[in-house]
Amino acid sequence: MIPDSLTQGQFDSVYNVLSLAIAAQLFTAIFLIAAQKRVLPRYRQALIVSSIVCGIAAYHYFRIFASFKLAFVTDSVGGKGTYVQAKGESFNEGYRYVDWLLTVPLLLLELIVVLALARKLQKSLLFRLIPASAAMIALGYPGEISHDDTTRLIWGTLSTIPFLYILYVLFIELTKSLDHQPPEVRLIVSRMRILLFATWGVYPIAYLIPVFGLDGGDAWVGKQVGYSVADILAKCLYGLLIYRIARLKSFADDPEFAKTEEHDESAAPAKV
Amino acid sequence: MIPDSLTQGQFDSVYNVLSLAIAAQLFTAIFLIAAQKRVLPRYRQALIVSSIVCGIAAYHYFRIFASFKLAFVTDSVGGKGTYVQAKGESFNEGYRYVDWLLTVPLLLLELIVVLALARKLQKSLLFRLIPASAAMIALGYPGEISHDDTTRLIWGTLSTIPFLYILYVLFIELTKSLDHQPPEVRLIVSRMRILLFATWGVYPIAYLIPVFGLDGGDAWVGKQVGYSVADILAKCLYGLLIYRIARLKSFADDPEFAKTEEHDESAAPAKV
Repeated sequence: MIPDSLTQGQFDSVYNVLSLAIAAQLFTAIFLIAAQKRVLPRYRQALIVSSIVCGIAAYHYFRIFASFKLAFVTDSVGGKGTYVQAKGESFNEGYRYVDWLLTVPLLLLELIVVLALARKLQKSLLFRLIPASAAMIALGYPGEISHDDTTRLIWGTLSTIPFLYILYVLFIELTKSLDHQPPEVRLIVSRMRILLFATWGVYPIAYLIPVFGLDGGDAWVGKQVGYSVADILAKCLYGLLIYRIARLKSFADDPEFAKTEEHDESAAPAKV
Repeated sequence: MIPDSLTQGQFDSVYNVLSLAIAAQLFTAIFLIAAQKRVLPRYRQALIVSSIVCGIAAYHYFRIFASFKLAFVTDSVGGKGTYVQAKGESFNEGYRYVDWLLTVPLLLLELIVVLALARKLQKSLLFRLIPASAAMIALGYPGEISHDDTTRLIWGTLSTIPFLYILYVLFIELTKSLDHQPPEVRLIVSRMRILLFATWGVYPIAYLIPVFGLDGGDAWVGKQVGYSVADILAKCLYGLLIYRIARLKSFADDPEFAKTEEHDESAAPAKV
């Protein structure tokens, strides 16, 4: 699964995309903490959770980056520009699952919390979404670490069941409760669900790469790039959309706050 | 006690669970600091202590992780996927006790402080719980580092005495003073005591694994996983429950604060 060797270009691509993920996630985490005062207190919980998600993801990318750097070394036989697996070290493929086990339930928590739904509805949605997302990740893991295609397919299929359930809850059940949201918020929530569907869809594709018989350096590099880009979109872009929702809802809840915070000159109070 | 060799799967399991513990504890610590303003000032002390506990635990897991990484290396004879103990390095088994000696008394402190009991009662409870918990940890240590089953059992038994005393104080004495708490808080305190009992119960089981004659890689990996999961629950989940209590008590104490902070749309003041 892990290629025996990488070219300089392949090595650099993985190095760069892992570092991009660290930078994006770490600074989105800092931004979301720094921007807390820019939403009403009741929406700060969602921002803190978004920040924590990006922080956890950044921590794991530091680990993945370090594992990658140790796992491949320049080959003294192949000469400069060829990397081979280092003796005594191995790249920990299953590692991303530890990250997802923590972050994926929190991503769903953010979305529900920022909508400030009625307490009973919120509880009911979380009570179904969070266990489903944990089950989705946990069921994928045995397939990921297996070298057997059948095992991979069985666990992959099992993992798809909670994934479909999550989509059902988000696209069918949640829609019913969006009536009380301001129109702009409804639009962003729709976009976020599509973002979530599109980015989460990358993971099963990367997961199935070995089953498709794709192997070797390029397939592996493609998988690393795919996972990393999906993580950046699913955590950073997602977190920034949560921030946008929190801002819009703060303005809708409290016109005074909107006046203090808004940039729009035309909306500024006339000078006395 | 420490196995001579580990398979790739065993090595990865320990690696992943130790890193999971770091991520969970570090980010719970950050969350609890970031969320301080979301409770009334009188409950912030409990949140700070919870955060410090998670921070101390994360620090120790960084140490344990580093010690583990140095202690095992790939075996050049056994080939790829076999790890053996590195020459000149050893995994520091007794290390967790340093962590517990600091964190366990603080965990009890959090619980008592967040309840905001009458000052005299609080003092009396802490005066008994904190020395008992320190004695519990200190008495376990000589057994942990011993290779002799009898020694292990003697110190284990001695350590159980303060443990039972702590349970007596929490389940009998504390119950008498819960009457003044809001019903939701009483429920959470009951759950926390069970969480505390269940997670602290994992430690003596892991402690006794060698006495049961279980040995080798799997037993050792099981012990590491057991300790780590227990630590995550006893520190992170426990800290988040403390936060929940602090929130509920803040709302009960100050309806104005509840209004600013509450998410519940149905509970929001009617727009004028």
